Amino acid sequence: MTTALAAKIARQFGTPSVVVDLDVVEANIARVQALCDAAGVANRPHVKTHKSPELAKLQIAAGAKGITCQKLGEAEVMADAGLDDILISYNLLGERNVGRLGALLARVRVTVAADSPVTVDGLAPAAAIAGRPLDVVVECDTGLRRAGVETPAEAVALATRIVATQGLRFAGLLLYPPPTAWPETQAFFDAARAGLAAAGLSARIVSTGGSPNLAHLGVLKGATEHRPGTYIFNDRMQMAAGVAELRDCAATVYATVVSRAGAERGILDAGSKTLTSDPGGLDGHGLVLEHPQARIGALSEEHGFLDLASCSVKPAVGDVVRVVPNHVCVVVNMVDRLVAVRGDAIVGEIEVAARGKIV
Amino acid sequence: MTTALAAKIARQFGTPSVVVDLDVVEANIARVQALCDAAGVANRPHVKTHKSPELAKLQIAAGAKGITCQKLGEAEVMADAGLDDILISYNLLGERNVGRLGALLARVRVTVAADSPVTVDGLAPAAAIAGRPLDVVVECDTGLRRAGVETPAEAVALATRIVATQGLRFAGLLLYPPPTAWPETQAFFDAARAGLAAAGLSARIVSTGGSPNLAHLGVLKGATEHRPGTYIFNDRMQMAAGVAELRDCAATVYATVVSRAGAERGILDAGSKTLTSDPGGLDGHGLVLEHPQARIGALSEEHGFLDLASCSVKPAVGDVVRVVPNHVCVVVNMVDRLVAVRGDAIVGEIEVAARGKIV
Repeated sequence: MTTALAAKIARQFGTPSVVVDLDVVEANIARVQALCDAAGVANRPHVKTHKSPELAKLQIAAGAKGITCQKLGEAEVMADAGLDDILISYNLLGERNVGRLGALLARVRVTVAADSPVTVDGLAPAAAIAGRPLDVVVECDTGLRRAGVETPAEAVALATRIVATQGLRFAGLLLYPPPTAWPETQAFFDAARAGLAAAGLSARIVSTGGSPNLAHLGVLKGATEHRPGTYIFNDRMQMAAGVAELRDCAATVYATVVSRAGAERGILDAGSKTLTSDPGGLDGHGLVLEHPQARIGALSEEHGFLDLASCSVKPAVGDVVRVVPNHVCVVVNMVDRLVAVRGDAIVGEIEVAARGKIV
Repeated sequence: MTTALAAKIARQFGTPSVVVDLDVVEANIARVQALCDAAGVANRPHVKTHKSPELAKLQIAAGAKGITCQKLGEAEVMADAGLDDILISYNLLGERNVGRLGALLARVRVTVAADSPVTVDGLAPAAAIAGRPLDVVVECDTGLRRAGVETPAEAVALATRIVATQGLRFAGLLLYPPPTAWPETQAFFDAARAGLAAAGLSARIVSTGGSPNLAHLGVLKGATEHRPGTYIFNDRMQMAAGVAELRDCAATVYATVVSRAGAERGILDAGSKTLTSDPGGLDGHGLVLEHPQARIGALSEEHGFLDLASCSVKPAVGDVVRVVPNHVCVVVNMVDRLVAVRGDAIVGEIEVAARGKIV
């Protein structure tokens, strides 16, 4: 069972191919922008999901205030393409990064995150290179235990240090609350705000993150902006988080069934070098739309192991199927180009220009 | 604690960087070639690990008979660089692939795998395009349950079909025995050989695969060649399989500690977009050489979560550390270039020319 579109994609691009439906992309962009507008929170989408200036510009055109990048290399690609007002939600360290940051700051508005005195002290030369002040937000942890100071007092101390550092400006607080920790996050933020006020400071930016947290937009009193990433494409993780339905999933991996050597098993030509091993906390490595009872039970690098025991109708060798990935952000990062479709029509290709920009 | 080399790599290339020590690479190549020579089995290394023509040529220069590729795109990159005698250990399907295969066959020696009549029948046009016969090996499964016919009778039937197909030549059998299934593999092979003989056929190539199976070289009576991949770099999986020691691990990820926001935790700037989420059946996502008691307990896309509870000496913000990855093949595929060192000296860069060649 191969649709006419799937056959066309296989002929033109081969499989596996990562395909995005721009109608769904545009609907996702519009829906989340409306959610942010309704909550009175600015939208600052995270480009880690699409890594494409073209798609970032669609987000800006729909009303996003600016963009978020995780790595400097992503920000450079976006700036090269004309994007401005970039938040790098990451501790940047080392003379190489700080030099690049200075060059970036000389041409676009940049805000960076810091969670330690070492990071803050190291950032100062970037402002000197750029010849203008660098905005710094203090990253705060309220339960994710990733980066971020653990107490409001540390946040205030770091803000004070930023203010005291030549060339740096305290811009606010960066948060990534676990979806279950909004009361704790409010308590942290209220204490930090009070501490900042006592020090004569205030947070212009109070930024929250995560597409799963779209369900909690506006919950944090005082938040000024949100950084959702995955919402532009969605995936099985977002469906599991309750913030997307299947019809909101814009990206699928088109893959060919290359082997049916056993009665109850098959092999897809998409393995961990396409779908990635990121489990996303889910069972199986993707949802096969044409055979939802099939389970992608394991991956080797170029093989997806299909368990077909529960499928009444099983795919045949040569069938091209569509897989909704568990975690689309890491899948997009595996390819240089996305195939763009609208419904049943191929409309072009989108360069994943910041693919692999881990530095 | 940052070594002089680590500081130099961070300054010159930034972190995370994937670094390979060519002294160790050359020792690995020589050691495994000697193992194959001693076992009387030809060495046909799998390029999926390094994806670099430059390194494939080192393997050939050391005595490898040819190379193995998983995808056609890898084979094209290798052929472009002058490599010849390429086994594509994969079912190639669809007119796009078969056309490309024909073009490849016109310029280099190619052997491909098949495990179904659909694949065999579809391959014929490649030979017509190239104007010369295409060698086909029958992929056989002896327990991995990936691709491969499940019975010797099916193998013989498929060999007969290959012989009967215009332009195709039956070249032999492709096996990937699980490390625990050598007796079963021998039984399968003996039955297949007898069946082939009864049909007037013989297997010129009997190919086994896998670096963990280097411990079983020569065990299969009748094997003619082996396809090890990971041995060129090694990783935690190969150490766990008992075929490599730490000193044999040529590839490490240099990463910076970017956050130490909690007393017992830290963050590396290498996450699932560098180390990948491939668990390799191991605890944690890599071995931090400078802090072997540290556990990389989780990854987000650009963050490696360090659990430092068991470390007597903990890393500081800004330290550059080396991580031996769980599964090096998927890590190398994340980057466009490897940094090449010999001991403490940076000696150049190696292009991962076939990176992302999933089609």
